Amino acid sequence: MTAVDVRALVFDVFGTVVDWRGGVAREVRRLLGPSVDAAALADDWRERYVPSMEQVRSGELPWTPLDALHRASLSAVLADAGLASVPAEVRDELVLAWHRLDPWPDVLPGLRRLARSYVLAPLSNGNVALQVDLARRSGLPWDAVLGAEVVRHYKPDPEVYDSAAELLGVPPSSVVMVAAHLDDLAAARARGLRTAYVHRPDEFGGRVVPPSSDPDADLSVASFEELAEALGV
Amino acid sequence: MTAVDVRALVFDVFGTVVDWRGGVAREVRRLLGPSVDAAALADDWRERYVPSMEQVRSGELPWTPLDALHRASLSAVLADAGLASVPAEVRDELVLAWHRLDPWPDVLPGLRRLARSYVLAPLSNGNVALQVDLARRSGLPWDAVLGAEVVRHYKPDPEVYDSAAELLGVPPSSVVMVAAHLDDLAAARARGLRTAYVHRPDEFGGRVVPPSSDPDADLSVASFEELAEALGV
Repeated sequence: MTAVDVRALVFDVFGTVVDWRGGVAREVRRLLGPSVDAAALADDWRERYVPSMEQVRSGELPWTPLDALHRASLSAVLADAGLASVPAEVRDELVLAWHRLDPWPDVLPGLRRLARSYVLAPLSNGNVALQVDLARRSGLPWDAVLGAEVVRHYKPDPEVYDSAAELLGVPPSSVVMVAAHLDDLAAARARGLRTAYVHRPDEFGGRVVPPSSDPDADLSVASFEELAEALGV
Repeated sequence: MTAVDVRALVFDVFGTVVDWRGGVAREVRRLLGPSVDAAALADDWRERYVPSMEQVRSGELPWTPLDALHRASLSAVLADAGLASVPAEVRDELVLAWHRLDPWPDVLPGLRRLARSYVLAPLSNGNVALQVDLARRSGLPWDAVLGAEVVRHYKPDPEVYDSAAELLGVPPSSVVMVAAHLDDLAAARARGLRTAYVHRPDEFGGRVVPPSSDPDADLSVASFEELAEALGV
């Protein structure tokens, strides 16, 4: 991958751009109080993420945006934590925890450098309104919001990766998928995108330690600033 | 319409945000030389815009992004101007004229004020890549790029207006459609959006003078700064 071929970078968001675990736990503490194990609740909620999207990917459910999947899986999360009595309006607020996540410290300085030379967009399973809220909260300099809801398919469905190049009007080989997850990058690569792996050792709070690099990616970096450096901006 | 109900503003782009006639004529002069009547060529090209989208809206053509419609209609424009010998690579550059249009002078100061309180997005018939190029060229502070290509329908199809509220996760009545064209606003109103008319007397170079206000709109203004003022930001 030479920097000169690259026209756009598209980003996984949960875990790659923002710290979902810390942010969800913070909102859980705020809304449910200090007696709840907030980190455990965040972990449990996240574990239901892939199975809930799988219901849409398999056709069992019609297209359903991530906010609605989060709202549905929250019922089981709260029930399992002995919190079945949490009222509906607090549940609605808890779903918005996913709109109030903070970026990792290297994200804004890295994106600001990358934005000078490249088109930047999220390519996330989060819905458009969620991405807009995250971006407005932190000043993420996206040029457009791409991803699952635009094509009504969840990653790793090929339609999501294909849409990035198509909507940006460039060849797949000039788009770099940036993610902290090997499976997301493998699916992007299968559709002809370039790939950059970002090591996020704290995503799962140390419970799961991701590999330090992806041997199949064009680039493996430890931060968005290192990514900017590698692309010469 | 009270400002407190408003969550998002979505914008028509050609004529409302950017001066398509001045920008296309400038690029025509640059690429075809001073002997061509650049403004007449821009007008002729624009006149083929609605009929070319109509081929998609009627189902005669499958979904085709605006860049490709512009490329197809350019052949007739050049032939009618006695310029059938213009080579393919110059035609490709001419199509990109629509990506290089400048905003009216009030646009950036108005949008910067509106961005403090409201989610802002284009809701145009122009494709996503075109909107990204326009925004990066001038610094238009969009939070997302919505519009025709995202839903594969051209305005005034109802799907385009419906998608704005749906993708932004808000009720249609909290979204304001901003446009310099009465038909666009009427179609938005029919789908439950609020409407703001912007008077752009120079859009057609004085050949057609638009009305100074739209009696059916919630607001009629002469600039984006006046729109910000009316919404109290």
